[in-house]
Amino acid sequence: MPAYATNMRFKFPIVALTLEIITIILYAVFVVYDDGKPSHHGEGHQAASNETEDKNIKLYPMFQDVHVMIFIGFGFLMTFLKRYSFSSVGINMLLAGFGLQWGLLMQGFWHMDDGKIKLDILKMINADFSTATVLISFGAVLGKTSPVQLLIMTVLEITIFSINEHLVAEIFGANDVGASMIIHAYGAYFGLAVARVLYRPGLRDGHENDGSVYHSDMFAMIGTVFLWMFWPSFNSAIADAGAPQFTAVVNTYLSLAACVLSAYAVSSLVEHKGKLDMVHIQNATLAGGVAVGTCADMSIEPFGAMLIGLVAGAISTLGFKYLTPILASSLGIQDTCGVHNLHGMPGILGGLAGIVAVAMGKKEGGNAAMQAAALASSLGFALVGGAITGFIMKLPGLGQPPDQNCFDDSIYWEVPEEEEENEESLAHGDHSKNKAET
Amino acid sequence: MPAYATNMRFKFPIVALTLEIITIILYAVFVVYDDGKPSHHGEGHQAASNETEDKNIKLYPMFQDVHVMIFIGFGFLMTFLKRYSFSSVGINMLLAGFGLQWGLLMQGFWHMDDGKIKLDILKMINADFSTATVLISFGAVLGKTSPVQLLIMTVLEITIFSINEHLVAEIFGANDVGASMIIHAYGAYFGLAVARVLYRPGLRDGHENDGSVYHSDMFAMIGTVFLWMFWPSFNSAIADAGAPQFTAVVNTYLSLAACVLSAYAVSSLVEHKGKLDMVHIQNATLAGGVAVGTCADMSIEPFGAMLIGLVAGAISTLGFKYLTPILASSLGIQDTCGVHNLHGMPGILGGLAGIVAVAMGKKEGGNAAMQAAALASSLGFALVGGAITGFIMKLPGLGQPPDQNCFDDSIYWEVPEEEEENEESLAHGDHSKNKAET
Amino acid sequence: MPAYATNMRFKFPIVALTLEIITIILYAVFVVYDDGKPSHHGEGHQAASNETEDKNIKLYPMFQDVHVMIFIGFGFLMTFLKRYSFSSVGINMLLAGFGLQWGLLMQGFWHMDDGKIKLDILKMINADFSTATVLISFGAVLGKTSPVQLLIMTVLEITIFSINEHLVAEIFGANDVGASMIIHAYGAYFGLAVARVLYRPGLRDGHENDGSVYHSDMFAMIGTVFLWMFWPSFNSAIADAGAPQFTAVVNTYLSLAACVLSAYAVSSLVEHKGKLDMVHIQNATLAGGVAVGTCADMSIEPFGAMLIGLVAGAISTLGFKYLTPILASSLGIQDTCGVHNLHGMPGILGGLAGIVAVAMGKKEGGNAAMQAAALASSLGFALVGGAITGFIMKLPGLGQPPDQNCFDDSIYWEVPEEEEENEESLAHGDHSKNKAET
Repeated sequence: MPAYATNMRFKFPIVALTLEIITIILYAVFVVYDDGKPSHHGEGHQAASNETEDKNIKLYPMFQDVHVMIFIGFGFLMTFLKRYSFSSVGINMLLAGFGLQWGLLMQGFWHMDDGKIKLDILKMINADFSTATVLISFGAVLGKTSPVQLLIMTVLEITIFSINEHLVAEIFGANDVGASMIIHAYGAYFGLAVARVLYRPGLRDGHENDGSVYHSDMFAMIGTVFLWMFWPSFNSAIADAGAPQFTAVVNTYLSLAACVLSAYAVSSLVEHKGKLDMVHIQNATLAGGVAVGTCADMSIEPFGAMLIGLVAGAISTLGFKYLTPILASSLGIQDTCGVHNLHGMPGILGGLAGIVAVAMGKKEGGNAAMQAAALASSLGFALVGGAITGFIMKLPGLGQPPDQNCFDDSIYWEVPEEEEENEESLAHGDHSKNKAET
Repeated sequence: MPAYATNMRFKFPIVALTLEIITIILYAVFVVYDDGKPSHHGEGHQAASNETEDKNIKLYPMFQDVHVMIFIGFGFLMTFLKRYSFSSVGINMLLAGFGLQWGLLMQGFWHMDDGKIKLDILKMINADFSTATVLISFGAVLGKTSPVQLLIMTVLEITIFSINEHLVAEIFGANDVGASMIIHAYGAYFGLAVARVLYRPGLRDGHENDGSVYHSDMFAMIGTVFLWMFWPSFNSAIADAGAPQFTAVVNTYLSLAACVLSAYAVSSLVEHKGKLDMVHIQNATLAGGVAVGTCADMSIEPFGAMLIGLVAGAISTLGFKYLTPILASSLGIQDTCGVHNLHGMPGILGGLAGIVAVAMGKKEGGNAAMQAAALASSLGFALVGGAITGFIMKLPGLGQPPDQNCFDDSIYWEVPEEEEENEESLAHGDHSKNKAET
Repeated sequence: MPAYATNMRFKFPIVALTLEIITIILYAVFVVYDDGKPSHHGEGHQAASNETEDKNIKLYPMFQDVHVMIFIGFGFLMTFLKRYSFSSVGINMLLAGFGLQWGLLMQGFWHMDDGKIKLDILKMINADFSTATVLISFGAVLGKTSPVQLLIMTVLEITIFSINEHLVAEIFGANDVGASMIIHAYGAYFGLAVARVLYRPGLRDGHENDGSVYHSDMFAMIGTVFLWMFWPSFNSAIADAGAPQFTAVVNTYLSLAACVLSAYAVSSLVEHKGKLDMVHIQNATLAGGVAVGTCADMSIEPFGAMLIGLVAGAISTLGFKYLTPILASSLGIQDTCGVHNLHGMPGILGGLAGIVAVAMGKKEGGNAAMQAAALASSLGFALVGGAITGFIMKLPGLGQPPDQNCFDDSIYWEVPEEEEENEESLAHGDHSKNKAET
């Protein structure tokens, strides 16, 4: 593959600006501020308006917590690779920045009011959620895809997400307040399907840059800890106000706390010398947040939430240790960040826990069959949608890096000079000019 | 210039403690808690008190978001330099810590009640805002000034800011809810005027430390992302509660999202190989927040906010690429962080957008001429105030570093030993003693 | 001491999982969601329920601020050591994750309702507080203890804390809203007592890893700045809603701002060349938050809070410079993070300020003698409890590292390969295998 194939000079700006301009035109036609007015005017207008304002101000701190999870949490969690931190946090910002605009449209089209999408904080939270699916999938293909490929994935994945989300919430009437199924399982299996299609035999024996250094692991911990702390906001942000929202906060908080203990314990247990592995700590400590998602607002009792977290932390750690290598060697699924362990299995666990909890009557009006349908639907859309998306991303001319340049920022970024002295000379010339002169 | 000129042992502590003690005395005389009581007692007292409390608790999360922007956002954004990260985050903390106390006084003097400044959360937000002007100017002279010089700049810049702010808000009655003009343009041009006065011909050909390393760019991204996420709080914190505040949140959120796309696209477009430049990503992605500031609470519609962000991101990136080198070489303005591109031009763009929006009737009671007067006033106070401040900072004996020690923490900080082995030996002796023994 | 003594492969998982499973059983028996219902049913039930919900949503942002202080603040503050950052942020997460579950139980047992602990946000804030004591003590013994030892310390310290807390708050009726005494002084002297018992003569002359590198100091500043910003939430979170809570915010905000100036000034004053020392900046800037804790919600007036901060910053910096070396050499107290300077002395200062403020009538219903009893009780429980805990931690077989492996992540963590080339070969074999292959 010739070197210029990764030169994004015209392709990337054209794709990015075209997408943004189309989006702005769609906003001009469809999106307005929510003024709190019901579509059919009448009495009660002022009350509705005040209620909207009040809800907006109450939800705003939770929105910001979710925002931090999306941009700092996901962005920094992926900076663990030694030479791919610029891309991790930078492309994360690009995809999320575009994805939230796109997600607001795609989800909004299902909930129009007088032909308009009325923007409020709840819709902004949902827009952030829709980008989370993309960022999860990004983790599976991290280091092996170009920004152009990833923008295409963003458009497709969010569009398909919004269809599945509508199906699950409106048609099935299933509960998934913390989105174990529709975000985590969906995002993970979508990404794994893409990764399967983009399988690289040349990376079968690993890559020298597919690992961390001490400081990159520390940057990743910034992501981990912010995700961990604010996960109660993620799982409760769209819950019904009052007791259900509070229950979602408490269940998530406790599930995550219990999950820490099992992740640390199992990490130590499976390593030869009983040492802790940063990959497990960075990821498996969060599995409790994923797994408690579906039943976060159900009355599963505090100890129930803790049990879910305990199991999720153990499963996730074991997955990193034993399953990820098998997926790569036997199934051709090269999952850079191990999203299968953090989002895939814990997401399915969450879906199953939701089925059980609903069957046990922990949620008024819940229906276990519909919960199962929601899980199946999320997995189905993920696998089929991911496979199709993968084939589209595989089309030539989208700037996919050659194997030897995977996991390397310098293929898409100006990288400061000093660091490169430590590397083997790469085949792409003048990128090492000193930024200080720019 | 003899080496001891930068020894701050007595000058800095004396200046810092004197300023603080004067401030405490002024607080003892003038500042009290806001008890919610109106100055003239009477009925309605309890209601006013409850309202104050309620407003305080509602605004507190937004205050904390702004606080994070000031201390983490600005502080870490400037840590991109390879050997100046201690100063960036540390002196940022010093200036902001003092500046907020001083700003509270300076702004409070215009709004006294029975001869007292009554402290509430809104005043604390405004105090944080006043420090933002200083931190923007700090970016222009980063690496080339001493802490003593910068404390002097803090006192003068905030004092002048509070005069201009009063003029703009109370006399002109202009709108600048997100402070494109009175904070961003003012802070930028103030700093550029100072930088012009402190012009260093010896740095014409660059400086080996005036650049980043891989990890310092990552620390800077922490600042970028927190600024980006919480900017909706910055632009809406002092907006009228209810719809205007919510509009400011939405407009800023969308402007920033669109800005990301144009910043990335233009960064790729202007680089030889189509690569992304971290300087652009760290800064130009934020220009949308600056530029939408003035009209954040106006009904410019979601797509209007996005257009402002789109243009701001492009202008800012182009400024970094083409304008900053010209400013340095032709006008003698050495702008370390490129504040002209992040705060200067986008600030003016914001002011102009505000004039247009008000002229189009997007703000009830707005007056386009007064908007223009506010922009002119902000620029005028900035340039004249900055120039005068620059000349005062240029007075001998304030510890300004010699050219060769610019952009180097070790002139004002104990720096750990190990790192210095990688550097050329510097001329100032025992600073490398091992901190571990202290 | 043979190398295998630090192998945690079975001990650590067994201890961690056993503690967690016991905790889950206790939760199953005792902990329920707070439904807002009073224990004896009757009218007013719905009102109480709404009030509970309203309080929960209002306190949630403050809870999250405190959460950030516990997990990011304390965790990153301790990452300053060059080779101990994984442990600092990672073991911090482990201890806090378990500690909050344990603290919720221990404090909850004093406040049962119909035999149940009813979980609400206030209890979650208090649970976070209880872990703060452990994290402070962790700072004193950082680098010299095993995870198993530290989990034991967590159980004992929080249990004893909850006894002292009950005594101080319920029996003495003393005021300590920001917990200068019951958290900061208690945590510090508990940790110092443990450190005294675990005294290591072999570290008398220092240790090559007991110091920072440039980037580790930057990671520590993330902790410092988040602690500094959110401290007003820490000191006000459990204050009475309304004026007392707002007063606590303002006093803490101003105390910290003044403290910055004195910490910087004194740091410069005591160094040979007038340079700033990162250890002082990272820690002493926070002493104002500690010292104003007890009287945060009292009417000490803004300037009173600033005076407390000014003094605290100076005392803390002087402590780092002059007292810490003496404690180590004369009293055998090796205080890795200098918690005596950040939490110990400022905590006592806070307790004393509280006595004076109450004696001056700054708090309705306060009693100076009871304040003094609270301080004495906190110190007494700390010293006795810490000594006993230290002896228990000293029992053989708990994985305490030998002197030469202190301050070294690689004894308990898989550490990426590249970094180790820079180190002397350590005696524990295969830990350097490339994580990328895992």
